[in-house]
Amino acid sequence: MRATILHGPGDIRLEEVPDPQLSGGHDAIVRVLVACVCGSDLWHYRGLTGLSDARRIGHEFVGIVESVGDEVRAVSPGDVVIAPFYYCDGTCVNCRNGVSTSCLNGGWWGADDRHGVFADCGQGERVRVPLADGTLAVVPGPVTDDELPGLLTLSDVMGTGHHAAVSAGVSDGDTVVVVGDGAVGLCAIIAARRLGATTVIAMSRHEARQELAREFGATQVIAGRGDAGVAAVHELTGVGADRVLECVGTKESMDQALRSARPGGMVGYVGVPNGGPELPVRPMFNRNVGVRGGVAPVRGYIEELLPDVRSRRIRPDLVFDLDLPLADVADAYDAMDERRAIKALLRP
Amino acid sequence: MRATILHGPGDIRLEEVPDPQLSGGHDAIVRVLVACVCGSDLWHYRGLTGLSDARRIGHEFVGIVESVGDEVRAVSPGDVVIAPFYYCDGTCVNCRNGVSTSCLNGGWWGADDRHGVFADCGQGERVRVPLADGTLAVVPGPVTDDELPGLLTLSDVMGTGHHAAVSAGVSDGDTVVVVGDGAVGLCAIIAARRLGATTVIAMSRHEARQELAREFGATQVIAGRGDAGVAAVHELTGVGADRVLECVGTKESMDQALRSARPGGMVGYVGVPNGGPELPVRPMFNRNVGVRGGVAPVRGYIEELLPDVRSRRIRPDLVFDLDLPLADVADAYDAMDERRAIKALLRP
Repeated sequence: MRATILHGPGDIRLEEVPDPQLSGGHDAIVRVLVACVCGSDLWHYRGLTGLSDARRIGHEFVGIVESVGDEVRAVSPGDVVIAPFYYCDGTCVNCRNGVSTSCLNGGWWGADDRHGVFADCGQGERVRVPLADGTLAVVPGPVTDDELPGLLTLSDVMGTGHHAAVSAGVSDGDTVVVVGDGAVGLCAIIAARRLGATTVIAMSRHEARQELAREFGATQVIAGRGDAGVAAVHELTGVGADRVLECVGTKESMDQALRSARPGGMVGYVGVPNGGPELPVRPMFNRNVGVRGGVAPVRGYIEELLPDVRSRRIRPDLVFDLDLPLADVADAYDAMDERRAIKALLRP
Repeated sequence: MRATILHGPGDIRLEEVPDPQLSGGHDAIVRVLVACVCGSDLWHYRGLTGLSDARRIGHEFVGIVESVGDEVRAVSPGDVVIAPFYYCDGTCVNCRNGVSTSCLNGGWWGADDRHGVFADCGQGERVRVPLADGTLAVVPGPVTDDELPGLLTLSDVMGTGHHAAVSAGVSDGDTVVVVGDGAVGLCAIIAARRLGATTVIAMSRHEARQELAREFGATQVIAGRGDAGVAAVHELTGVGADRVLECVGTKESMDQALRSARPGGMVGYVGVPNGGPELPVRPMFNRNVGVRGGVAPVRGYIEELLPDVRSRRIRPDLVFDLDLPLADVADAYDAMDERRAIKALLRP
């Protein structure tokens, strides 16, 4: 089959790789219907994570089950399934606590599983899915082609935006600031409105993204960043926002998020902290600003969000502004790297 | 009148100072019935905060109202009142949001108020209380002498321990670790049990404090600290505690708290972060461990906690293991500095 391989900074290619095989009773083989490029894939593409070797890439996909192992009960050949950006058993104590990203038996696409067998990545034609019962969410059929982009957002970006909002404790009547206008930030706007926020202030300086932010329910857009951005938030809110959703992951964006929160407010954060900014505890302490979030346990959110996606009550599919055949994967990375695209969908 | 003055590291004296006077319509003059020494007073006493000048000290007191300004409505001469460790108007947006420690018009004992008039400290015979209506909680009479120590804990330590538990989101059935066996940590044990925790693990290596921890509802006590303490918590809990209450404020104690929480767990922190430890965001992110807390808005907790204190359903008064006349204030500091006393009560 064909799959995407990152050879080095800026060097991404679609190549022939071995077809995945069922290796254990809990596996499924999934044929990918749609995949996409994540903002976090760009960290590797840009060489910021110290890539040492050529590697498979891609962790978001929706597909159709081709075969399953003997122990699989919840998933059958022919099912359309959503895969989260990790795999998990769904039964360990961390999964039961709602933190399936810390599954005791789970792992990440593109690495060997605990039995030493490679788990394929999403930007390819097929994937061996370990722990299929815990990992895959079945979409009750029939599923139409035009539903696929929306379903695909439940692999990562919509669930991750939702996690930011849940972590910050967004509820009815809240004033919310969203830092970051990538696909996750935009989905966080959807999530905040869906959870009852009445004022949602989007921080964005890109016209197309500002427009989408408004379409997703942002009531105000602020183009300024840093001190200017914080000042504008305080001008709009008085003492700061009840909740701030940090969807970037840099020291600057976290600093802006913390300073945008009101005393007693919460920052929900999902931006992967690349470069590892430390949190300044003293100002957090003085103002009682809390911080909660992390690697979003999106598997647990799929059932809650799925009906709203299928009914089009929410439209996270609109984050895809580029739709390419998998063969053009290099163009997809290029477009996202240059911010010409918010998020690129790939069709094998 | 007489009041306590800290002249320099280890040099604390009771001296004659001017009697406080009503300066504005919102003031009250309170005669102090009981005051006490706080763990945070010791930071100044030990010279760790860079004391530049002699200064009044003490921020916890219960007293009887002697006189009030023309604008005061909620407090009358003769009322027994509890003062939180700060003053606040009770009406600004931050107070309404439950964060009265960030009151827009409030301030701290021992400093000039916004009108430039000194607000006395608690370790003295009388205090001018600005913003009396917002600041003082009236204890419905009659109030007996033996109630005073319990009421006094609502000035700070009981409310602060409660804030740690509330910030961490303690609820029914939770497993909770409490880091710190000072008066606040001990009160946090009470608070965790009161909010429904079924397992409370106290970190303490002092026998008398271990005993009090158990009396307050700790189900287990761990004497180890650092790596050993964290390992012992994981041995007891499997994946870590649902909630961890950090009641010390050092880099080491915060590190221990973060590592004691399970994936998805919350650290509620109230230990004043002296030395300003930064929070390590990457491990927090990877494990979805949140952090919330700060300067405890205890004024807002008094009404909720008061009935349980008066009925002796909870016994935070037991943290006072030294009871001295105000004239012996130097002995009180000495005993707490040497950890011979958990908390010293002072009677003017």
